[in-house]
Amino acid sequence: MSKKLSEARTEVALANRIAANEGVLDTLGHVSMRHPDNPHRYFLSRSSAPDMVTAEGLIEYDLDSQPARDPGVAQYSERVIHGEIYKARPDVMSVCHHHSPSFLPLIATRTDYVPITHVGAVGGIKPPWWDQHDDFGDTNMLVARPEEGASLARALGSHWLVLMNRHGVTVAGVSVRDCVYRAIQTCRNAEQQVRAMSIGTVDILSQGEMQLAAEIPKRTTALIRSWDYWAFRVAKASASPKMARASSAKAAAKPRRRGGARRR
Amino acid sequence: MSKKLSEARTEVALANRIAANEGVLDTLGHVSMRHPDNPHRYFLSRSSAPDMVTAEGLIEYDLDSQPARDPGVAQYSERVIHGEIYKARPDVMSVCHHHSPSFLPLIATRTDYVPITHVGAVGGIKPPWWDQHDDFGDTNMLVARPEEGASLARALGSHWLVLMNRHGVTVAGVSVRDCVYRAIQTCRNAEQQVRAMSIGTVDILSQGEMQLAAEIPKRTTALIRSWDYWAFRVAKASASPKMARASSAKAAAKPRRRGGARRR
Amino acid sequence: MSKKLSEARTEVALANRIAANEGVLDTLGHVSMRHPDNPHRYFLSRSSAPDMVTAEGLIEYDLDSQPARDPGVAQYSERVIHGEIYKARPDVMSVCHHHSPSFLPLIATRTDYVPITHVGAVGGIKPPWWDQHDDFGDTNMLVARPEEGASLARALGSHWLVLMNRHGVTVAGVSVRDCVYRAIQTCRNAEQQVRAMSIGTVDILSQGEMQLAAEIPKRTTALIRSWDYWAFRVAKASASPKMARASSAKAAAKPRRRGGARRR
Amino acid sequence: MSKKLSEARTEVALANRIAANEGVLDTLGHVSMRHPDNPHRYFLSRSSAPDMVTAEGLIEYDLDSQPARDPGVAQYSERVIHGEIYKARPDVMSVCHHHSPSFLPLIATRTDYVPITHVGAVGGIKPPWWDQHDDFGDTNMLVARPEEGASLARALGSHWLVLMNRHGVTVAGVSVRDCVYRAIQTCRNAEQQVRAMSIGTVDILSQGEMQLAAEIPKRTTALIRSWDYWAFRVAKASASPKMARASSAKAAAKPRRRGGARRR
Repeated sequence: MSKKLSEARTEVALANRIAANEGVLDTLGHVSMRHPDNPHRYFLSRSSAPDMVTAEGLIEYDLDSQPARDPGVAQYSERVIHGEIYKARPDVMSVCHHHSPSFLPLIATRTDYVPITHVGAVGGIKPPWWDQHDDFGDTNMLVARPEEGASLARALGSHWLVLMNRHGVTVAGVSVRDCVYRAIQTCRNAEQQVRAMSIGTVDILSQGEMQLAAEIPKRTTALIRSWDYWAFRVAKASASPKMARASSAKAAAKPRRRGGARRR
Repeated sequence: MSKKLSEARTEVALANRIAANEGVLDTLGHVSMRHPDNPHRYFLSRSSAPDMVTAEGLIEYDLDSQPARDPGVAQYSERVIHGEIYKARPDVMSVCHHHSPSFLPLIATRTDYVPITHVGAVGGIKPPWWDQHDDFGDTNMLVARPEEGASLARALGSHWLVLMNRHGVTVAGVSVRDCVYRAIQTCRNAEQQVRAMSIGTVDILSQGEMQLAAEIPKRTTALIRSWDYWAFRVAKASASPKMARASSAKAAAKPRRRGGARRR
Repeated sequence: MSKKLSEARTEVALANRIAANEGVLDTLGHVSMRHPDNPHRYFLSRSSAPDMVTAEGLIEYDLDSQPARDPGVAQYSERVIHGEIYKARPDVMSVCHHHSPSFLPLIATRTDYVPITHVGAVGGIKPPWWDQHDDFGDTNMLVARPEEGASLARALGSHWLVLMNRHGVTVAGVSVRDCVYRAIQTCRNAEQQVRAMSIGTVDILSQGEMQLAAEIPKRTTALIRSWDYWAFRVAKASASPKMARASSAKAAAKPRRRGGARRR
Repeated sequence: MSKKLSEARTEVALANRIAANEGVLDTLGHVSMRHPDNPHRYFLSRSSAPDMVTAEGLIEYDLDSQPARDPGVAQYSERVIHGEIYKARPDVMSVCHHHSPSFLPLIATRTDYVPITHVGAVGGIKPPWWDQHDDFGDTNMLVARPEEGASLARALGSHWLVLMNRHGVTVAGVSVRDCVYRAIQTCRNAEQQVRAMSIGTVDILSQGEMQLAAEIPKRTTALIRSWDYWAFRVAKASASPKMARASSAKAAAKPRRRGGARRR
């Protein structure tokens, strides 16, 4: 495995643990990454709680969400969300699917997401909705069949966020870090949007402000600073004696080393 | 004690600690398990905060909630909740009684529980209510007499969740893991249902979606993945230097072994 | 010092740390205890965040809230709350004054506290209110003069809870444990009462249920079980390396010197 | 570097970590300090998450927010907030800019901050608002140009708090501790004000009470007690095994041994 690939795999594992540690993911949900050297492949963890994802546990999939080789372990049933978005959107390098509590009140009331500050601008103003029932009638709500994933990808269109009725949210990004940043910051905006709505009418960014503010992560140090801190927090949480037993002393040492210490 | 029984007892102790660690139980409430080899018996902890329950502290009861032998320690006063449900419902293998903060706003406003996502489907749509006052007039609200437990069991009927006016919730399951999964996921759904209701009208699963989605824990890896993770989190919390048990290496090893590590 | 007195002092120190650890107290607020051997005296910590209170740091006061001897350290300015209540209420053995976030929405909207479950019955139905402005006009809101404390004690009357407009709450108990139990459980009830009110009309215990349920802590193991668990949680939090340094003067000095603990 | 200056730099680093640890700052936002010996200079960290700020990472700026020497590291883009306020307000010795979740519901609904208890009096009654759009039209919402900072400083006027539409809050203080105390306590007041508003009409301090209560931190031990405690909490969080400094096995072992064992 090339050093670049190895680092990318480590990064997507860390991305899952960051998203879990920051409240985007709990036992369900996942972050994937397009293969850095092969746009027709992507990496997603074996079935695992996001906070327990490791680079070693990643499975390589083609864009039809078939594993490159028999993984011999349980797989996520909703992996077509990732495959179908990578198929439809060549510019997307990372996808996160989640059911964060922050968003559920908006989802459950079909309330549009709106950016209440510049930080929330990365979600856009009123991103699109998708309802599995429209195309597929009564289902168990899991996006498990390729056509379900493709339908969701169509709803996403050229946006970076799609809200899924009675289900959750799917987020895309131009890199793993961009995707995780977008997922975390939109959750935080959604959380405060809900609290704000409980006391009054919400003031949102103008279209112009939204477009300019959405560029902040590309132009300033905000993304690097945030990623470094979230990685540091994962390292803090993981490096406690707790984790020790989770695998072996050696394995436990690893997230630490990769976690907070390294700084690009 | 057979190995099977010993493992079952360990599992129900862990179930109490998981339910505590995930916010379902605090100092009150409890999870029980029907005896795996004798359907006329069940296990429930001695009087203890759920997070401190151990396999050694379990008491074996008959279905009239009388201990198999004098336990010589304080017992939960509400154990008839468990006994009477096991008596009425041969398919139930585990019961959890709780007063989770997540549910109290629904309880206090007599608002029906509704599943706002597929994950919440395990609670059903509008599960039944019970009011101790209807059959017993003014009481101290504890379900302490067999007839009170039997009344509650009748209200539960063939459902898996019953809401108790001015009191809390009782949950049943086909296994300890099923019961705990149901308890945790319904709490999370209730929590978000409350937040959603504070800003709008709630969109819920169709009857068909609810029925299909309620099967997810049986058909997918979601239950295993969740249980493993919750056990891992208990192990993390318990294994920190903080805990009494962690003061001796030998003792510390115990929760670890039973905790998150084991995977079936 | 008798063993009984020494244990009592340890208990009141622990009470402060439990109330802090369970979210009743933060940097302000305090729990006191009447002297177990002398009803004309009480113990209250030197000025200290509740989570840092120690048995050694307790000051002995007469009921006019004058220290038995010059303590040589900063004292709480609101200690008259304790002294005046002990003076007016011979049955009260412990007092807790707090500004818990759980209660502030009720306080700020002058909404009566009501027990929404049997657990919250220890606060009574609609306990009394007090407004410092009524007797004293514009003040800095601190209850610092004996007449202010006496006015508050009159408002408390024969109740166990008094709500203080634009300020907080004062709780009394027949023992330290009773007082802390009442403080914690009323906070939790208040927290859920507020959430419930945001979505509907609140269903409360009948007068008869309230009276019977308020006796639960005296008649069942609920109080012991809760206290043991809360103490266990304090031990967990304290036993981490964090506290270590705080209890050893030498070690403690270090983070303080570097950190914040330097005192002018 | 003089001892005084060295201590001041340590204090401002700690201030950032306290504000992060108490929920005022997350990955964004910052606390600065005017140079204690030179009123024409101020200190602000290099670009860094607040919880990772160190005394070594501080950059010295002139009041035009130009670094005294090339820092060779990334800088905060919003440092003009600090510089322009120091320029306009000779009495201000410390500034904190934040986007705390506590305030966002007020910001997003343009709801005035009001003190609901004496503790919240340090924010004043209805502090001023600023809208970047008024003077500058559509921007990316960052206060990055000197004229933007100057406009904000004009809105602050002689107050200690200014609310920024679709953005956040800026707080000033007569010392680092005063500024952090004001930032934390106004966040807590705002948090409860929002919850209160979701259930009723809010009762606030009278003008006289507000003025008297705002003096409390100067006249009592409340500020010292709070700062000591918050520093203690930072030390606790930092000193856990997780952190670098705890990496010495010997040090880590100590607290553990003494740790959780003690039980009443």
